[in-house]
Amino acid sequence: MTPRIQRWQRVFEREISDRLDSNDCSLATLKEAMRYAGLAGGKRMRPLLVYASGESLGTDPDQLHGIACAVEVIHTYSLIHDDLPAMDDDDLRRGRASCHKAFDEATAILAGDALQALAFEILATDANLSTNPEGQLSIIASIASACGASGMAVGQALDLAAIDQHITLGELEIMHRLKTGALIRVSATAPAQFASAGPELCDKLARYGDCVGLAFQIHDDILDVTASSQQTGKPARADAARNKPAFPTVIGIDASKARAAELCRMAVDELEGFPGDTSVLHWLAAFAINRES
Amino acid sequence: MTPRIQRWQRVFEREISDRLDSNDCSLATLKEAMRYAGLAGGKRMRPLLVYASGESLGTDPDQLHGIACAVEVIHTYSLIHDDLPAMDDDDLRRGRASCHKAFDEATAILAGDALQALAFEILATDANLSTNPEGQLSIIASIASACGASGMAVGQALDLAAIDQHITLGELEIMHRLKTGALIRVSATAPAQFASAGPELCDKLARYGDCVGLAFQIHDDILDVTASSQQTGKPARADAARNKPAFPTVIGIDASKARAAELCRMAVDELEGFPGDTSVLHWLAAFAINRES
Repeated sequence: MTPRIQRWQRVFEREISDRLDSNDCSLATLKEAMRYAGLAGGKRMRPLLVYASGESLGTDPDQLHGIACAVEVIHTYSLIHDDLPAMDDDDLRRGRASCHKAFDEATAILAGDALQALAFEILATDANLSTNPEGQLSIIASIASACGASGMAVGQALDLAAIDQHITLGELEIMHRLKTGALIRVSATAPAQFASAGPELCDKLARYGDCVGLAFQIHDDILDVTASSQQTGKPARADAARNKPAFPTVIGIDASKARAAELCRMAVDELEGFPGDTSVLHWLAAFAINRES
Repeated sequence: MTPRIQRWQRVFEREISDRLDSNDCSLATLKEAMRYAGLAGGKRMRPLLVYASGESLGTDPDQLHGIACAVEVIHTYSLIHDDLPAMDDDDLRRGRASCHKAFDEATAILAGDALQALAFEILATDANLSTNPEGQLSIIASIASACGASGMAVGQALDLAAIDQHITLGELEIMHRLKTGALIRVSATAPAQFASAGPELCDKLARYGDCVGLAFQIHDDILDVTASSQQTGKPARADAARNKPAFPTVIGIDASKARAAELCRMAVDELEGFPGDTSVLHWLAAFAINRES
């Protein structure tokens, strides 16, 4: 990891902490639950994608903290809700109790709900974004679409519906593109909407995000089989335990690795012709399929 | 109910149905759950407030369907989540099975999540609102704030935290203003943001919405004690059964009715000096405390 990425991560941790602290919440428990889930570390893959995508377009990453915080806050809410007993029923997240175990189910549901609202409040009030109101509105629309009934939420619903089912590779890819891919893709494209980049660069970033998002989730499936709970901070072999279709069970570990590597190459192939520095986008494509947690 | 209000209700039902139908959701069950909850009838108090508030400012109500649908979609998501077993555990809503009983808990959680996202997508893409992008962004910010950790979500959390507790009248009013009042208030003020109304009219509508919102919830508490399940479509005496503080238990039925009537008068007192027709705002203030369900 380069010093620049580490600096972005440090700055991001301060930015998201400030935003999770600023809301005027009159119940300490709810605010604590939001901060507990939002400040649990994690790779911050989506914020890094936001900054790296901005840099590839020549946009100062420091203008993109609002987008970075919003997508990570949405990711955080989705993890809280996914872990609930009625969903994946996971007690462990990022090496510690998941939100509903550290607090209670009702608090976890409401913390997730409040985080989703916070993401849109951040996007609608961000001073940098407001220099381009049309871009700001198109970003809000894209992120709302990416996390709703035609994106992340339906992806999670398809994931639950697939338990104990035999599904095809095509169906599995569609599910993963929705569940994980949609938010990763919009993390790559939102900076282009802010920068009012031309359609060619927007499309390249969309295809890049699409490939990286799917590769990221395939690698998640692989780690579920190959990595320890200590390594990932999540229960090991959770997919198999719940009889959830996943890449290794559908096409095997080796073919899964090959598919992830192919998607990584396809993502990198898109990174030609950008006005700015694409080095971190290259690094993130590789990171998506080489990370150990 | 005047023919004009009935016409607004009819038009609104078509508008919200169109929006709940338009999302490109690849899982029929999730979409059905969203439509089941969103098209269950109900009073449509918040959309009516949006139209009536617009009319008081001289704005054509037909320009406000986006706002009306967004606030009702958020209200719908909140009802789905409030009814969950981990929250109020209500099996009955609007005279039929609540969403998690008609479908399942995971689908209900995700339908709620997807509805919240849909509300912001509606607001960010509405063609009428986009004629005033700054107003549109301020509406998104206000609605996000009203439904998050400093509004509706914390109100519900406070409501659950109050079970088995003795709370003061002041605390009860704060809780109700957040849980129910914040979204009702923003339903009254969002049209003023769209119309770029001056601060005096915005403040009047905010105080009107604040009073009507609290009166509405006090009347809800009264109905919980006095009305049958058949009448309200919800379980009767649910507050007492769960030992939840409510107006009748804290100050008695008569004092509750008097407080609701006082708030209704205070709301109506704000309706001077408007350029348009305030008759439906008058009607809604009375409806909030006279309705039978």
